[in-house]
Order: sequence, then C-alpha cells, then structure tokens
Amino acid sequence: MSDLAKYQQEMLPAIHAYLNEFVDELFADSKTELRTIFRYHIGLDAPIEQQGKRVRPWLVLICAQGAGGDWRSSLPAAAAFELVHNFSLIHDDIEDNGETRRGQAAVWRKWGLAPGLNAGDVMFATAFKALENLQGQVPDDVLSKASLLVADTCFRLTKGQQLDIEFQHQERVLDSEYEEMIAGKTAALLGACCQMGALLAGKDESEQKNYRQFGQALGMAFQVYDDWLGVWGQESETGKSTYGDLMEGKKSLPVILGFEASARFAQRWGKGALDEREAQEMARWLLEDGVSAKVKQAYEHWTAQASQHLEEMDCEGEVKLALREFANKLLTRNK
Amino acid sequence: MSDLAKYQQEMLPAIHAYLNEFVDELFADSKTELRTIFRYHIGLDAPIEQQGKRVRPWLVLICAQGAGGDWRSSLPAAAAFELVHNFSLIHDDIEDNGETRRGQAAVWRKWGLAPGLNAGDVMFATAFKALENLQGQVPDDVLSKASLLVADTCFRLTKGQQLDIEFQHQERVLDSEYEEMIAGKTAALLGACCQMGALLAGKDESEQKNYRQFGQALGMAFQVYDDWLGVWGQESETGKSTYGDLMEGKKSLPVILGFEASARFAQRWGKGALDEREAQEMARWLLEDGVSAKVKQAYEHWTAQASQHLEEMDCEGEVKLALREFANKLLTRNK
Repeated sequence: MSDLAKYQQEMLPAIHAYLNEFVDELFADSKTELRTIFRYHIGLDAPIEQQGKRVRPWLVLICAQGAGGDWRSSLPAAAAFELVHNFSLIHDDIEDNGETRRGQAAVWRKWGLAPGLNAGDVMFATAFKALENLQGQVPDDVLSKASLLVADTCFRLTKGQQLDIEFQHQERVLDSEYEEMIAGKTAALLGACCQMGALLAGKDESEQKNYRQFGQALGMAFQVYDDWLGVWGQESETGKSTYGDLMEGKKSLPVILGFEASARFAQRWGKGALDEREAQEMARWLLEDGVSAKVKQAYEHWTAQASQHLEEMDCEGEVKLALREFANKLLTRNK
Repeated sequence: MSDLAKYQQEMLPAIHAYLNEFVDELFADSKTELRTIFRYHIGLDAPIEQQGKRVRPWLVLICAQGAGGDWRSSLPAAAAFELVHNFSLIHDDIEDNGETRRGQAAVWRKWGLAPGLNAGDVMFATAFKALENLQGQVPDDVLSKASLLVADTCFRLTKGQQLDIEFQHQERVLDSEYEEMIAGKTAALLGACCQMGALLAGKDESEQKNYRQFGQALGMAFQVYDDWLGVWGQESETGKSTYGDLMEGKKSLPVILGFEASARFAQRWGKGALDEREAQEMARWLLEDGVSAKVKQAYEHWTAQASQHLEEMDCEGEVKLALREFANKLLTRNK
C-alpha cells in the first residue's frame, strides 16, 4: 500500500465519524430541520463517492502528523475547515443560482431560499464552535491562534468570492485580478489547512509559513487546472457539459487570457450567449491561439511552487511522500 | 448629567470611531464594493439618528467598566458583536424580503442578492477577525474564551432565526417554542455582550453568569415589548404601519397567545390576508380578550428578572445606576 493510501485509510473514516458525532451533538435537542440539512449537505448519509473528497480536513490531519503532532487531537480543527468549505458551497449555490451540488438538489432548492441561506449561517457559526473541542487539548495561545486563523481564512475566502461576483459585471478582468480572486476563494483555505496542522503540532510561525505556502500553491494549481478542465475537459470524465464554462460566460482563466492572446475570441466574446457549437469553436480558437498552453504554463508554475515548498517543509519523510502523491493525484485528476 | 448620559457620551463616539477605523483598515487595499457596503449598512456616514442605537457594543463596554475592567481595551469585542448584529440584519432582510432597513434601501435591494448575501458573510467573518485586536490586551485564555463566546452566540442566534423561519409554515406555535426562539434570536446576543464585558474584565465564570443572565432577561423583555408595539404601538411613534405585524401574518407573541385566549381571533386567523380595517378589528379583539394584558405580564416577568440579576451583579455603583436607567429607557421606548 502506498503511503498516501495508508494515511487516507486511517484518517478519512475518522473525519467522517467525527463530523457525524459532532453534528448529532449540535442538534440533539433541536426541533428544526438543521440536523437533516447538515447531514444532507455534508453527505453524512451518502455513499462514499458522494461524500466529497474531504481534501481540506485531510490536509489538516496529515500536516499535523507530518509536523510531529497527534493527528487525532486535530480533528476539531479539521472539522472546522470542512464546515467552512461546506457553508461556502451552500451560499455559492444561492449566489450562482446553482441547482445541483454533488449530484443532488442544492440546499436552497430543496428547502427554500430563507432556510437554505440561514442554514449556511448556522454552519458558518459551527465551524468556530467546533474549536471548543480543542480546549484542553492544546495550549490557550494555540487555541486562540487557531481561532484567529479560521477567522482570517473566512475573511479571505469571502473577499475572494466578492471579487468573483463583481467580475461578472466587469468587461475585462486582468490576470492579476484573477490571481487575487482565486488566492482568496480557493487557495487561502487550502493554505490555512496546512498551516493549521503545523500550528497544532507546535511548529513556530516561520515553519507554519512553509506549510501554508505549500497549501496555498497547491490551491492555486488546483483552481487553474479546474479552469482548464472547464473548457477542455472531457464530459465523460468531468460529468459536466464540455465547454460549460464558456457557455455560462464564466470569466475563468482561459477566457481572461483569451482576451489578450486571441483576437477572434476577444471579438466574439460578450456578443450574446453561445450555443454548444459556437462554444466548441471558441475552445478550438483558444487552443490554436496558444491559450491552452498558457493556462498549462500557469498550472505548471504553481505546481512547481507547491513542490518547492514541500521540499522546504520540516515534515516527516513518509508524510512528505504521501503529500507528493496526493498533490500529483489532485493535479492530474480528470474531474 | 445622569450616569447613563455620562457613560453614553463617552463610549458611543468611541464605538463609532473604532468601527470607522476598523472597516477602513479591513478594506484599505481592496478593489471591491465591500468598504462602501459596510459603511452604508453600519451607518458610518449616516446622521447620528440613523446609525442604530449601538445597544450591543455599548453593553460590552459598560459591563467591562462595571466589572472593574478597562472599557477602551474591550472595543474590539464590542465591535465584534455590533458586526454580528449587523451581518444578521443583512441576511434577515434577504430572508424576509425586507426592502428597507433604518429608513434606507436594504443592502440586497441596493446591490443585488449575490453581492448582498456575500457581503453579509464577509461581515460575519470580520466579527471574528475583530478579536485579533484583543491580542496582547488580554491573556491568551481570555482571548480564546472570548472567541468561543462569539462562536456560541452566533450559533444560538442563527438557530433562533431558523426556528423563526420554520414558524411561518407551522399552523400553531407554543409559548415555549416562542420563548426558545427569541432566547436565541434576540436575547442570546444581549446576554453575550454583558458576559463579554465581565469576561474581559477578568471576572470568574460564576460572576460572568450573572452578567449574562441580566442581558439575557433584558433581551427577552425587549423582544416581548417589541412584539407588543408591533400590534398596539402608535404608527406616529414606531414609524411602522400600525397593525403591521398582524397584516404580515407574523407569529409574534400576541398572535401566539391569541390562539389560546381569543376564540374569535383563532377562528379568523389564517383564513387569508388581512386588510388594515380587519387587522384593526383583530387588535381590538385581542385587547378585549385579555391578550394585551398577557403580553404585558410576560414583559413584566422578564423586566423583573433583569432587575433581579442586575441587583446580584458584582458591579460598580454608578454603572449599576446607568444600567438601570438604560433598561428602563429600552423597555419603555415607543419605537
């Protein structure tokens, strides 16, 4: 068994069990629909393939282990970040009018706008509440730093989301603006998960920074690759309609780079909705005009950064191997 | 000058100045609309009468002072609770389809649903982020407890809101359910503000509890009185349409008690929308059938509780006088 498989087999069921118990305790005496909504959205009763990959809580645990800590006592912080991620998905679906999530109806579609929105707020609050269970497990200064790390991460995440929302009404978006947006919306959370592991294991701030930068670069590469898949991924593999991002008019990286590198694309874009045939043609233009290659370059840049930060991390050897394997898988996935 | 006036004259401008600076620092380098949205919703550029009463942050400061602490160093926590209150208003307005707030367009009406919803999330995150500024001002264990207190308060608040939302689809609501709802939605936050003051001043848990119970009872009385005003308040004084709560079909305390105490009311309620004349008649039925008196009884119960907890608090004499005056004003206001 590979190092990655070994750690995943040990940690993923522990994350599931912890979330399961935590949610049930939260709502033990509650008469509302909240327990049902939480279990549904987090996938606590779903078959394993619909539970989500638990990338974020797993990163907390594996980094705690790699930094010499006890991964089991880091479970409350791992749960906190999984709840942050999941609250943001509930609200994103309302904001983007997204009807489905992980193959089932989005929370707001199933329960309505008001209960859905507020259930997202409850989940946001419980992310911080999860940290209660770190009390007595870590020193007070570490606990207060953990809480401030979650707060700062939520701030970056929601600021990134605001940029993304505002991009939709902007005619042009610069590379640098795009980078700022995904740094907040996607990479801040992955960076914070890795930093949290190191913090809870007792690493000092400069070493925490190495962990954070690894996660941050991993998140940047992950998002750039996701954007590439959104235009050139195969429908049979991604499960989403091919060219979907183009047809929805999303300002993803291929579109942003297309404005600069492909005159025919820039001329056509923004002149009304695209049907599938047109979107296919534009994907071909972008490819021929070198945009796919540019997106891959950006992706390779962030992958190399992640790899370099991983080298620099003061981290147990087996965990380092597992993290390298994990990054490779995450960044060559086809969905 | 009364003790209340003296403390308000000193503390309210300090709260305003702190929020002002905090918001500007948060978004110093940001290209989004967030700074504008925050300033607009919190009323940072509004004339003083439209700024909101700052009840919650003031309670933090006055309780810190009364408990023997330094109120100025409690400003970050005061700001945190004002931000919690304000984020919840942004989301409430979306959930209730509320078009105006403090005499101006609600955030979601002015900026749109997606930016409004997400700006509420950013404000939620910044409530926790505000606590960063307690670092170095209070011991680590106090900082981590302050953070967990904010988390628990947000959890109670949003759970209370969920109950309120679900009440709208329930045919009958019990007194006890109503009490649970306002205990979360309104009273938890006021209780936490008072507790926070005592916590930051270094009081032990049992003394913090006295402060908390005072604020909690004050919040219960405040909400019950608000419900009374919603049916029998004078439009010229409340600024809202008289009988508005009845016409909107809100399950406020007079309605809940009306089901039990007024057969003619119970028979008419729920058979379609009420016009103003009908609402006026139903308000009269409720009054004649003793419901106004019952609501006042509930109000007097909570007012007496607040008064008793105030007596028991280990709190500086002048501050106690100011708090008594404050409670009297808050609970006999006409809007």
